[in-house]
Amino acid sequence: MTATPGLIPRGARNPGSQGALRHLNQERLVEFLLANGPSTQAELARGTGLSTATVSNIVRDMAAKGVVATSPVTSSGRRALLVQLTDTGDIAVGVDFGRRHVRIVLTTLGYDVIAEEQVALEPGYDVLGAVREAAHLLDRMLAEGGHDRESVLAVGVGIPGPIDRRTGTVLQGAILPEWVGITRRELEDVFGFPVVVDNDANLGALAEVTWGANRGERNLIFVKIGTGIGAGLILNGQPYYGFLGITGELGHTPVAEHGVICRCGNRGCLETIASTSVMLESLGRGDGARTASDILRRGLAKDPAVLRVVSDAGTAIGQAIGNVANVINPELVLIGGPLVGLGDALLDPIRHGIRQNAIPIIAGTTTVRISSLGDRAESLGAAAIVIKGALAGQDG
Amino acid sequence: MTATPGLIPRGARNPGSQGALRHLNQERLVEFLLANGPSTQAELARGTGLSTATVSNIVRDMAAKGVVATSPVTSSGRRALLVQLTDTGDIAVGVDFGRRHVRIVLTTLGYDVIAEEQVALEPGYDVLGAVREAAHLLDRMLAEGGHDRESVLAVGVGIPGPIDRRTGTVLQGAILPEWVGITRRELEDVFGFPVVVDNDANLGALAEVTWGANRGERNLIFVKIGTGIGAGLILNGQPYYGFLGITGELGHTPVAEHGVICRCGNRGCLETIASTSVMLESLGRGDGARTASDILRRGLAKDPAVLRVVSDAGTAIGQAIGNVANVINPELVLIGGPLVGLGDALLDPIRHGIRQNAIPIIAGTTTVRISSLGDRAESLGAAAIVIKGALAGQDG
Repeated sequence: MTATPGLIPRGARNPGSQGALRHLNQERLVEFLLANGPSTQAELARGTGLSTATVSNIVRDMAAKGVVATSPVTSSGRRALLVQLTDTGDIAVGVDFGRRHVRIVLTTLGYDVIAEEQVALEPGYDVLGAVREAAHLLDRMLAEGGHDRESVLAVGVGIPGPIDRRTGTVLQGAILPEWVGITRRELEDVFGFPVVVDNDANLGALAEVTWGANRGERNLIFVKIGTGIGAGLILNGQPYYGFLGITGELGHTPVAEHGVICRCGNRGCLETIASTSVMLESLGRGDGARTASDILRRGLAKDPAVLRVVSDAGTAIGQAIGNVANVINPELVLIGGPLVGLGDALLDPIRHGIRQNAIPIIAGTTTVRISSLGDRAESLGAAAIVIKGALAGQDG
Repeated sequence: MTATPGLIPRGARNPGSQGALRHLNQERLVEFLLANGPSTQAELARGTGLSTATVSNIVRDMAAKGVVATSPVTSSGRRALLVQLTDTGDIAVGVDFGRRHVRIVLTTLGYDVIAEEQVALEPGYDVLGAVREAAHLLDRMLAEGGHDRESVLAVGVGIPGPIDRRTGTVLQGAILPEWVGITRRELEDVFGFPVVVDNDANLGALAEVTWGANRGERNLIFVKIGTGIGAGLILNGQPYYGFLGITGELGHTPVAEHGVICRCGNRGCLETIASTSVMLESLGRGDGARTASDILRRGLAKDPAVLRVVSDAGTAIGQAIGNVANVINPELVLIGGPLVGLGDALLDPIRHGIRQNAIPIIAGTTTVRISSLGDRAESLGAAAIVIKGALAGQDG
């Protein structure tokens, strides 16, 4: 047999687009500068393998946008151009909308935090009203720091719900139904800045590998346990978005065949038995447990009912994580959300659930830890997508 | 708040290693040559953004290894060096071990199939005996084609079981328990060639995006339904291996809480209710259904018992795929294995299961199709890992 019907001839293979190639090359330069500090163009070319022409084109571009500053120096007796990442005062903004709060962080492009604030929101808040409140808070933070509005590159916004990346629209399944249908453009109108939207769990995952203690991890799942249960993925060292951007919908793993109908439209999803709201329902209202922080407080006081509810939910969540670990074999699972202060009382049932569902070698080699960034993860991740976009020379 | 405890200072970021950078650059050059045909070094530098020094270093290296040939030409009145991928007769070998067969394919580095053969193996075969049989078949194929043993770059071997990529060892959970513990080195001793081992479903996925009709797909799951149920992943356009290389263990998703113990050590795994062996058990032996091809034949004849068994198994498999789709949001799910000839009788229950478990927008946007390469997928994928390794300049 030597016929090869249906195979693709070699000439037909698709080359990368020039634009994508340029972003890739710019990212390489920026990574080199982040790792090695100020460098001459010749050092950049040697260190990346790019041609001096490519380096000087990209450097000229980045200098025009203020991403780098250049200065003439003498290197080995010859004139050279020193390139360094600037701190021109350009600001990345990260905004994290939760069910009861909005948190804003201002950072430099060099991953330094300039300012950070959080305000409470009423549960069931009007979305555009809350966005206006966030916009005022942002304006105040900029004014207090003496930052020009011009210095804001873009606002990264984290939302607790699935987002269609093709249009930047919040989809059915968001924690607050009021968010459904909100678009990036509406947020831009209120903030008055370019906006990038992403799911809060995706941002938590990104924050861990950009700001957090888990920088350099290649494959991790960040699982946020709150009113919803969502996961963000870092795969092969990069944020993973899949086809539409709707990834990590761990909370919609069906786990109860005859369970209740979920807000996503399916039946018996993990969220219908293991979210913090369901934990509170199980504990009964009026018994002093009205919010996730009550669960945390009573769990820390070793209240047996709370520990049982956390154990049941954690086991179910661990089982769903185990299914995912069987498929994507991460080295690390990070747990975030309002209950992380419970520590092992939360992690142990999760680990038990993973052992029940993951094949032994995967269960035995997957590390499960509390997120390193606490309630800052999502807002820092939101700033990180702005920084990454700016450093790669992407617009918007 | 401006303190940034626990954050990583910018100077501490990790640069890519020089070796990894070189592979990346070589891959870029090869991709450009595959897309554009013979090119001068100057064209390669322009087309990739790499420096002429980088290009000529890598070209010299690839020429020494015989991957490219160079010839002096005149371009715009100046002397230039034309670079083209060679067909020096170098051969990639792909070997696919199934439960009842071994299939071998010989290909060029330009993805042309030179020869392809399959022989039957007795179920429960002695593994090293079967490997020796495959080695003899390979020797005969090489002799018949007049190919020198020296021309074989490496042998890619697909095995139906999880493989620890750190050591190239087949792990607990392989379809044939006899495969467990077999190492890459043992296979090299028998074949007398460098060997690369990989899981058969991973290879099926790779074949789809290198040889098949789905080239260019960024995110796909290839699900092989046979004696075992395994999946291979292409994520962000690349084969995905995770932490240890043990990915896509879809067959070990627990689906029956009080089900039987699975060979992986867990309880009620998908494979315990939906593999072709379990379908045959359900149909009862001695009733003319002894192998997967009997299921296929009787299913095509619309035997109601067979259609019911296929429908139940397909729905359960679809549910497990739906859970995974919720997390990795693929554009495409490809189904492979011996039952694919059933077409929609197999696909419809799988699609039904996906709709039950995936959130509506994911269920509605995930395409489910039969694999384009049939029973050739795994062996072609095994040759593709050898080709990819050779073109990226990796040894072994």
